[in-house]
Amino acid sequence: MADPDLAAIDRRIRESFARQSMMETFGAKILSVAPGAVVIAAPVLPGSRQQHGAGHAALAFGLGDSAAGYSALTLLPEGVEVMTAEMKINLLAPAIGDRLIATGRVVKAGRRLTIVTAEVEAETDGQRKLVALLQGTMVPVG
Amino acid sequence: MADPDLAAIDRRIRESFARQSMMETFGAKILSVAPGAVVIAAPVLPGSRQQHGAGHAALAFGLGDSAAGYSALTLLPEGVEVMTAEMKINLLAPAIGDRLIATGRVVKAGRRLTIVTAEVEAETDGQRKLVALLQGTMVPVG
Amino acid sequence: MADPDLAAIDRRIRESFARQSMMETFGAKILSVAPGAVVIAAPVLPGSRQQHGAGHAALAFGLGDSAAGYSALTLLPEGVEVMTAEMKINLLAPAIGDRLIATGRVVKAGRRLTIVTAEVEAETDGQRKLVALLQGTMVPVG
Amino acid sequence: MADPDLAAIDRRIRESFARQSMMETFGAKILSVAPGAVVIAAPVLPGSRQQHGAGHAALAFGLGDSAAGYSALTLLPEGVEVMTAEMKINLLAPAIGDRLIATGRVVKAGRRLTIVTAEVEAETDGQRKLVALLQGTMVPVG
Repeated sequence: MADPDLAAIDRRIRESFARQSMMETFGAKILSVAPGAVVIAAPVLPGSRQQHGAGHAALAFGLGDSAAGYSALTLLPEGVEVMTAEMKINLLAPAIGDRLIATGRVVKAGRRLTIVTAEVEAETDGQRKLVALLQGTMVPVG
Repeated sequence: MADPDLAAIDRRIRESFARQSMMETFGAKILSVAPGAVVIAAPVLPGSRQQHGAGHAALAFGLGDSAAGYSALTLLPEGVEVMTAEMKINLLAPAIGDRLIATGRVVKAGRRLTIVTAEVEAETDGQRKLVALLQGTMVPVG
Repeated sequence: MADPDLAAIDRRIRESFARQSMMETFGAKILSVAPGAVVIAAPVLPGSRQQHGAGHAALAFGLGDSAAGYSALTLLPEGVEVMTAEMKINLLAPAIGDRLIATGRVVKAGRRLTIVTAEVEAETDGQRKLVALLQGTMVPVG
Repeated sequence: MADPDLAAIDRRIRESFARQSMMETFGAKILSVAPGAVVIAAPVLPGSRQQHGAGHAALAFGLGDSAAGYSALTLLPEGVEVMTAEMKINLLAPAIGDRLIATGRVVKAGRRLTIVTAEVEAETDGQRKLVALLQGTMVPVG
């Protein structure tokens, strides 16, 4: 990132992400940060599963919610943070694969509310399959 | 539980719960099982937090979703399981307290879909505060 | 309503309701206004139906959304209005009956967001059946 | 539509649409039918408004829900119909313009559940603005 603003956004988001212990518990990492779009990935760790061994809905939710929240943050001024006001998830297929990849995107950034979506894909041998779709609202705070 | 059916339901749900490694990661335990209502609790572990130290949205979601799903399971015949088709969460307050308590309830049990809700409360010194509200759809499988 | 504040709230809500032409199109009327709870009812008019003659999802949605929005308004200062930021509806049964009755309730009133729910029941010969459940977010404006 | 199957789908959807009296009340028309995607438009009639003269949330919901439902129907065998199990709408901007255009799309078609989205745009002088985003679940019946 040669652009100093993008570099600052990138750093801000990675610092916030590093303070979210749940992301570490999930083994999650940020793959990319761009204005209005953030991608996060995590394996389906042995401790992140539902009763049949697939990734738990809370894993897909947590990755999608974080990717969506950070995508909102990329469009907000420094010093502002975001909180999830509400989020809806449709689960389309079992979260089985080498890793889950969550892509969060801003639909509409507003002064009081930012509307976001996220897609969560399960990747196996480089092939991706959509496993969850999220749509929600982030609120800027601070 | 003197009722043999309730005892069977209770056992079935606790066995399923024990296979969900995510629940163990969250430190979650089942507090009660009744027809159409299941209560699950978990502390806000050091590894379950967002960037300000409160419980992560994925924790509130995971507890609420599981409580709701198991409440659906209490009304289904043996051998049937449930999957979350979709779930919506409104986050009302930071998840801060000694533990989170999620109460799942069946709104309408159906052959093909069961509609559920869950309330997630944060308990501090025995006082409870509502921190999240969930509404969703469970699908019987198997 | 002997309480002058309640009387003012009641009048304010009925005036706003009267300006919503969609409510007139639906044949909707306010049944009651109380702090944090508003009840609206409407018949399933010949022009409000889906392809099998039951009430259209947009009717159940519109009644529930309005009841929920006005329940939020009862707790806000004069001069403030509310807009629906988001709303989720689960449809539980066909909207068939003499009339639909929507009860909106405030879950949590906040300065920036008010969380609401609504139940929509179909009434037939005085018997009520739950046909839809809504959960959403209202934003104060103005 | 030269393709006989597409022609049959198109006819089936237009017949169902014509039986939805709510669509006539809204002044809605089908603009296009394609496999997995249906577009519906309606003006903001004098009888479809909220208290400030913009289109009512129930109008945006009804158009989006119908477009989404019919998009699901395009992928189902003849004789099957769909019902909305649940739908979530985020309202992004007031529904003001010459007409509203709702585009429904299938995200995942399944034997038991079809996941859909819809975008509702307000068009003014040929310019379109996104005013609502929907995500939900359709259930095949019959």
